[in-house]
Amino acid sequence: MKISALGEFPLIERVAQRLPPYRNDVRVGVGDDVAVLRLDDQRYQLATCDIQVEGAHFLRHSITPYQLGRKAAAINLSDIAAKGGMPQHFLVSLALPPDTEVSWVDALYDGLCEEAGQYGADIVGGNMAKTDGPIVVDVFLLGQVRQEEALLRCGARAGDLVLVTGWLGEAAGGMALLLQSDLAVGKEEAEQLLAAHLTPTPRVGEGRAIASKRLATAMIDLSDGLSSDIGHICDESHVGVRIWADRLPVSRATRRVAELTGRLDWALALQGGEDYELCFTAPPEAERELAAAVKEATGTEVTCVGEVLPEEGDRWVQVPDGGEIPLKREGWDHFRVEA
Amino acid sequence: MKISALGEFPLIERVAQRLPPYRNDVRVGVGDDVAVLRLDDQRYQLATCDIQVEGAHFLRHSITPYQLGRKAAAINLSDIAAKGGMPQHFLVSLALPPDTEVSWVDALYDGLCEEAGQYGADIVGGNMAKTDGPIVVDVFLLGQVRQEEALLRCGARAGDLVLVTGWLGEAAGGMALLLQSDLAVGKEEAEQLLAAHLTPTPRVGEGRAIASKRLATAMIDLSDGLSSDIGHICDESHVGVRIWADRLPVSRATRRVAELTGRLDWALALQGGEDYELCFTAPPEAERELAAAVKEATGTEVTCVGEVLPEEGDRWVQVPDGGEIPLKREGWDHFRVEA
Repeated sequence: MKISALGEFPLIERVAQRLPPYRNDVRVGVGDDVAVLRLDDQRYQLATCDIQVEGAHFLRHSITPYQLGRKAAAINLSDIAAKGGMPQHFLVSLALPPDTEVSWVDALYDGLCEEAGQYGADIVGGNMAKTDGPIVVDVFLLGQVRQEEALLRCGARAGDLVLVTGWLGEAAGGMALLLQSDLAVGKEEAEQLLAAHLTPTPRVGEGRAIASKRLATAMIDLSDGLSSDIGHICDESHVGVRIWADRLPVSRATRRVAELTGRLDWALALQGGEDYELCFTAPPEAERELAAAVKEATGTEVTCVGEVLPEEGDRWVQVPDGGEIPLKREGWDHFRVEA
Repeated sequence: MKISALGEFPLIERVAQRLPPYRNDVRVGVGDDVAVLRLDDQRYQLATCDIQVEGAHFLRHSITPYQLGRKAAAINLSDIAAKGGMPQHFLVSLALPPDTEVSWVDALYDGLCEEAGQYGADIVGGNMAKTDGPIVVDVFLLGQVRQEEALLRCGARAGDLVLVTGWLGEAAGGMALLLQSDLAVGKEEAEQLLAAHLTPTPRVGEGRAIASKRLATAMIDLSDGLSSDIGHICDESHVGVRIWADRLPVSRATRRVAELTGRLDWALALQGGEDYELCFTAPPEAERELAAAVKEATGTEVTCVGEVLPEEGDRWVQVPDGGEIPLKREGWDHFRVEA
């Protein structure tokens, strides 16, 4: 069987099942975006990596190397943020065609440094290799979190609320603009959506604000889309979920793109990937305090978009007309999409 | 300017110079194969990565996925070994064409697990992505070492001896056999050389034995070839070196390949890459104790192959006829070779 027929998550699941039992003290291992490793009695080491392949994740003519550097750093920072952690050390692996301009590499590193520096992290190593194929930028990030503040995917409980930071669907809106540049969207709105797609903002401060309150029960970052990523919390926490489509935070700019492309704005917000917002669960009585903490620390809004159900309650989207449809994983699958 | 014109090490040097000062506690950063990061008062965190690109580092028809998995793990283990460290946690990034067989991925992971397991390390994460180009296997490895046992590249002093583990030139011999399979080499010798090239043995136990004696002054693993890698110790320690060509440990099998391919056996040992043996420096009075410790812990021989000179003494090879030639970096450059 080809991997394109199996799909990304079943392949990861298959790999995870072939691994021998862990020898070292591993709190969370293969299957999560971040490995959570016991460092000592107080701290977890967090380790994550994300690979960006030209042609699959980016096109050289639609993103500058500086933007690519920022984005490659940001998506790793977002993974550490989703555990409530502080990012610290980057390693950067590059596979580059021999005819790559040195100035391209310079600009890539300028973007990596800029983004890392904003969150107090350093680039401490990596390696470079030649390729005859597409450019590959593989970024590895280490961080730490106090054990009692770490947020995993497995703590959500029936009755919790589902909360998200910022806007959803903006990156998908930006992608739509890149694919169809003649959409009648105002200049300012277009810039906002393109920035969301090309240089997403990792929610490190937001993640720390949420984690340090010790009231949230689970957290994940939205890389593949809420409809897909909330499924990981459901899987790991053994719960169901109901997402309220009319509560999804959709910006005016995203709504405009949805109209112009004949899509439902809530579907764009639910299924669009690469927003890199945080999605977390918490008991209803903690909602206000958590939202206020995030707003005070970062200025970012928190929106309640759903509720956690018992596992047998299954996974639903309550659509704006009042009906319910099953929540399907319609996010990004790296092998199946376009494969 | 293209990166192929600049070359790998000048490009890394250029990147290192563009980085801002480190914010966190970084003992060794960009420019080394391994980042050395202060974990607490006693320990360093070690972090390394190595990217393997199809067509540049391996050919799909000349290495099995199982062998490739073992090798990808081994070259990272070797980097941790070179600091005297204990390997702990692997992350594995893969870029795969959609038509890759699931069984190929299974076998790759079997190899990774086998090699990691032999040294007590776990595979705890990673990610997979689609590519339209060559397969990329990028492996990250974390390890730890007690601060007082860590061996860096910067501690060599004039008067120290240069010591190596095992045989040199075996992997280059194996590569020669792959390129020219009709060489008249016995079956056993051919197997020995091919194994050295396809599934090198990381010297983790040897590195620990050397480090725990606290007598060595600097260490590196031989990935690009002794002539190139010893240069890193000279650069970082501000010393010169004299390598005694007739003392380089060359196996009978390697000597046979050298004869058959019209090369000098010591040149093959000096310049051949991918041996993944350890090269370390130590005062003459420590040689016997270190060699005995390595032999006792692992069965591996240690050979003295040169001496450390003052920096102004420069870098030399004393060739078997008694003359001296300048030691040039004739190891592997990822961008220049074949570029």
